[in-house]
Amino acid sequence: MAKVGIIMGSISDLPIMQEAKDILTELGVETEIDVVSAHRTPEKMVEYAKNAHLTGISVIIAGAGGAAHLPGMTASLTSLPVIGVPIKSSNSIDGWDSILSILQMPGGIPVATVALNGGKNAGLLAARIIATFDQHVFHKMEAYRNELQEKVKESRTKL
Amino acid sequence: MAKVGIIMGSISDLPIMQEAKDILTELGVETEIDVVSAHRTPEKMVEYAKNAHLTGISVIIAGAGGAAHLPGMTASLTSLPVIGVPIKSSNSIDGWDSILSILQMPGGIPVATVALNGGKNAGLLAARIIATFDQHVFHKMEAYRNELQEKVKESRTKL
Amino acid sequence: MAKVGIIMGSISDLPIMQEAKDILTELGVETEIDVVSAHRTPEKMVEYAKNAHLTGISVIIAGAGGAAHLPGMTASLTSLPVIGVPIKSSNSIDGWDSILSILQMPGGIPVATVALNGGKNAGLLAARIIATFDQHVFHKMEAYRNELQEKVKESRTKL
Amino acid sequence: MAKVGIIMGSISDLPIMQEAKDILTELGVETEIDVVSAHRTPEKMVEYAKNAHLTGISVIIAGAGGAAHLPGMTASLTSLPVIGVPIKSSNSIDGWDSILSILQMPGGIPVATVALNGGKNAGLLAARIIATFDQHVFHKMEAYRNELQEKVKESRTKL
Amino acid sequence: MAKVGIIMGSISDLPIMQEAKDILTELGVETEIDVVSAHRTPEKMVEYAKNAHLTGISVIIAGAGGAAHLPGMTASLTSLPVIGVPIKSSNSIDGWDSILSILQMPGGIPVATVALNGGKNAGLLAARIIATFDQHVFHKMEAYRNELQEKVKESRTKL
Amino acid sequence: MAKVGIIMGSISDLPIMQEAKDILTELGVETEIDVVSAHRTPEKMVEYAKNAHLTGISVIIAGAGGAAHLPGMTASLTSLPVIGVPIKSSNSIDGWDSILSILQMPGGIPVATVALNGGKNAGLLAARIIATFDQHVFHKMEAYRNELQEKVKESRTKL
Amino acid sequence: MAKVGIIMGSISDLPIMQEAKDILTELGVETEIDVVSAHRTPEKMVEYAKNAHLTGISVIIAGAGGAAHLPGMTASLTSLPVIGVPIKSSNSIDGWDSILSILQMPGGIPVATVALNGGKNAGLLAARIIATFDQHVFHKMEAYRNELQEKVKESRTKL
Amino acid sequence: MAKVGIIMGSISDLPIMQEAKDILTELGVETEIDVVSAHRTPEKMVEYAKNAHLTGISVIIAGAGGAAHLPGMTASLTSLPVIGVPIKSSNSIDGWDSILSILQMPGGIPVATVALNGGKNAGLLAARIIATFDQHVFHKMEAYRNELQEKVKESRTKL
Repeated sequence: MAKVGIIMGSISDLPIMQEAKDILTELGVETEIDVVSAHRTPEKMVEYAKNAHLTGISVIIAGAGGAAHLPGMTASLTSLPVIGVPIKSSNSIDGWDSILSILQMPGGIPVATVALNGGKNAGLLAARIIATFDQHVFHKMEAYRNELQEKVKESRTKL
Repeated sequence: MAKVGIIMGSISDLPIMQEAKDILTELGVETEIDVVSAHRTPEKMVEYAKNAHLTGISVIIAGAGGAAHLPGMTASLTSLPVIGVPIKSSNSIDGWDSILSILQMPGGIPVATVALNGGKNAGLLAARIIATFDQHVFHKMEAYRNELQEKVKESRTKL
Repeated sequence: MAKVGIIMGSISDLPIMQEAKDILTELGVETEIDVVSAHRTPEKMVEYAKNAHLTGISVIIAGAGGAAHLPGMTASLTSLPVIGVPIKSSNSIDGWDSILSILQMPGGIPVATVALNGGKNAGLLAARIIATFDQHVFHKMEAYRNELQEKVKESRTKL
Repeated sequence: MAKVGIIMGSISDLPIMQEAKDILTELGVETEIDVVSAHRTPEKMVEYAKNAHLTGISVIIAGAGGAAHLPGMTASLTSLPVIGVPIKSSNSIDGWDSILSILQMPGGIPVATVALNGGKNAGLLAARIIATFDQHVFHKMEAYRNELQEKVKESRTKL
Repeated sequence: MAKVGIIMGSISDLPIMQEAKDILTELGVETEIDVVSAHRTPEKMVEYAKNAHLTGISVIIAGAGGAAHLPGMTASLTSLPVIGVPIKSSNSIDGWDSILSILQMPGGIPVATVALNGGKNAGLLAARIIATFDQHVFHKMEAYRNELQEKVKESRTKL
Repeated sequence: MAKVGIIMGSISDLPIMQEAKDILTELGVETEIDVVSAHRTPEKMVEYAKNAHLTGISVIIAGAGGAAHLPGMTASLTSLPVIGVPIKSSNSIDGWDSILSILQMPGGIPVATVALNGGKNAGLLAARIIATFDQHVFHKMEAYRNELQEKVKESRTKL
Repeated sequence: MAKVGIIMGSISDLPIMQEAKDILTELGVETEIDVVSAHRTPEKMVEYAKNAHLTGISVIIAGAGGAAHLPGMTASLTSLPVIGVPIKSSNSIDGWDSILSILQMPGGIPVATVALNGGKNAGLLAARIIATFDQHVFHKMEAYRNELQEKVKESRTKL
Repeated sequence: MAKVGIIMGSISDLPIMQEAKDILTELGVETEIDVVSAHRTPEKMVEYAKNAHLTGISVIIAGAGGAAHLPGMTASLTSLPVIGVPIKSSNSIDGWDSILSILQMPGGIPVATVALNGGKNAGLLAARIIATFDQHVFHKMEAYRNELQEKVKESRTKL
């Protein structure tokens, strides 16, 4: 069964990355979570990225902040789709550095970037990718979008 | 067989979006290209997005510039993965508006954003997504990354 | 009698949008308020925007944050004037995304954008629009501007 | 009959402001165009703004670049709706100064800001405002939006 | 004797503008302080600026935030030197709007802009201007710069 | 008689700084122009700034681009008013570095910053400063502002 | 033995600059710390920078915020490597001014800029420089990088 | 003898990186130049960085544009000082992405960042580093700074 690998550059990124794990768990998708730092454990990162597809991982979600190299470097070492989550960490300049160093990859190596601190959307994007070949997840995604609608309707009671 | 739907907000976006089509064709992935404007043909957009998965499309690539609503609106109307290409069109402020209005989607509806004018990377990302369930495309992606390496080596002769 | 339709992308935008409602009520203009999300209830949005002019609405005020598509999409589905309120929501990058994705509409579909979190000015702008054909509201606007002057004078006592 | 007053801070803004005039003429709305500089002819500006509603003007469109004070100052001197067009003039920093000094009006005095160099959309917004009380213009606006759709369809032949 | 006129767009700017008054008082320069709003009391502003040189004012300091038009408009209505203080008011986008709408004046009408919230430096600049023709103030400025040096030396004890 | 010292960080800044010299000459104010680089001739800069008031200079205009330290360093070494001209030089990032490194001086040492590439306004500001004690220059400034009005009127013939 | 000179523009920068001192002490490198303000003690700065290499200093670390001239000016007065630390001080605009006025030095005078508030990295960079000729420090740096890896491993227990 | 390793992410960065090589050659410092792409040849990058200090390299200069990961990744794999050159490549957003993804390194792994396109300053910084242990290069650097002064003097003849 498909599995999503979730990695983060620092344990301080966990609150955001946990949102990815939670929504995937809710949608019935298996996940595996780890701390892999591009700058502090570069060789572990190389190994992780090169072998991910051999360990049953279909999609990688990588979160990092500041000069955020983890998503792009991971994408350069695998052919799996890599989703990048820019994190507004304490050393980030309002998140601009995190966004630009993940988004602006050169032609050849794509990273699927989501919004600043968009851990939840990273999980949902991974689910949509898995849904391209897993009808079960696809139906869950359809249901999820319906729920969003319901919640908007409910919120109107506060008006 | 899997197919990638490529849409753009204006025919002036074609040079960038053609890069997505070309790389997908090179990788043996079928594509379908169209002009669908969020602002000028909103109802066509609704129809396109709602029915895409019924017409054999697995992944949607949507490019737009300025207040670029096409990728996000499309993502809100389908459960397929949607890749957004921010385009530095003539009415864009150095591309910042295109990037932010595609990237900063609210929790619930993800868009896989690539670099400014990143038509080629959008195509490669779509290919990586299809490669999660299509071994043939996966091997092509591996070969593609090898070629990138070779080209770097060749470029060294210019030193 | 003329009526202003006030919509917001999320119930969390209410504190800002309430300012629009309050000033319009103060100026004697009827309002109607609702939550309509471009991304979570796209089809409700289409219906709302297409029918607004049939339900007695003369001006629409739409507030949203982040990748804020509600004002622009609404404007693309109606011929009524649409006022956009960029909201500095929790997922926004200091409001820049909200501003640019509302302001930078392509030629053909205008949105009357007001300042970040400018709910009050959105209400005042709607009143000025209604005042173009309603002398009563016009006189109220003139009086309102006089009051602003008086308040400045009063504030001088603090010097 | 309703009339739109178009003013600009410098004759060099004419190419952008002419787009407003042209689309209004096309939609059958009368216009009046003038150069009124907030900084070089401040007293003429005061007079223009204070008397505009007495000369049959229903909506004012004001374009300016750099530290662009014309739209906001005009709005402070009239109760008519004022549309601001930020212009990327030669002395502007990529248009950011023009946008922010028009958009970020304080609570009390609204300016309906359109996109950078958005002369055409300023004209269309003025037409939508007039259409709130002029059914003839409303129908022209509906037709205009239909034409936009047709042009998108035609552009597809280039694919 | 020379006098500095200090005006602010809103009473909420007082804490910053008071710094200008305090340092000028400390340097023995007479001041006069008032609230003059470009947008809420435009005609009072015109009168103030046109007559300032007749009431013994030699330099004007004007502070404002957001779309800050007060310094530039004042400069357009007088031949006195006008010092602009961009204020990071509650409705400002991190101060960028305040800075750009004061700094980026068109050729012909200069504003001497100081740092964001730079009330103290505005006062010091006014004193330097007065010192060009008042030896007494010049000597006070020289002494002031010496004091700055002393304070740095003293602060070293904290190392 | 009063004299304005004009210095620039590099001879490549001359086209902008010449505008300051030209307008001052037109207004009958004596000038002295030199190349003084904060980074390449730091000791010459110290000497220039410390002695300027002894050589008959009343106001200093300093232009520089990129990490533009000349205006601020000069201001720290003299009690004369220093006007800073941020220059969009070839090594500047759209002028943002030039602006911020001149404008954002710490409390204690003010620089009167003008618009990006605002050589002309720097000259006019220097003239306004001299006009505080020189009635002749004051009258020339009044006449200059009248001319600006006339030129706006003339430009209307192009409408 | 090699020594690192640490200077800061204001005593309020101490918390950040102390990080440089602490890591260097930990790595066995001697330091010397002082307050030297480019704007308040310009002549002391000149003396410090010109003589640093004569007092046994091999590398200078200079921290400053806002219009941060200390690192660049120091570099212009010495041939030693100068490391600049942009500080997000209270008068800084989110740190952008600090970064740009340190980073964007003109060709000829380099400053080795580290991240915003990057006191620790400034210390580590100084150590790497000293390690180019001091094997003892080089081995400490290798050990330090190993420790970083270990800490990442340990942090995984929190998952 | 000390040697500087110069690497760039793409052969298109050569014109900027050649400036580093040229100034080092002029100063008598040996260099070695290569194309090493973080994203296209990640494993070659790992090998280069890990072994650089074994091949006689004392300082590494790494240039890259867009999401520029080469300098930071190299720094994470060596204990040598790494100088990063942000390049305004064709796929860069005015250079902001290049700057932020090089500058904003997390605590632990420093990169000595120079100005945008600052190839020459990167070379000069490398020379200053080598000069900390090589008196011959130190004297050349002193002479170089003297020459800068002379060139400023000569340029004055153009006034």
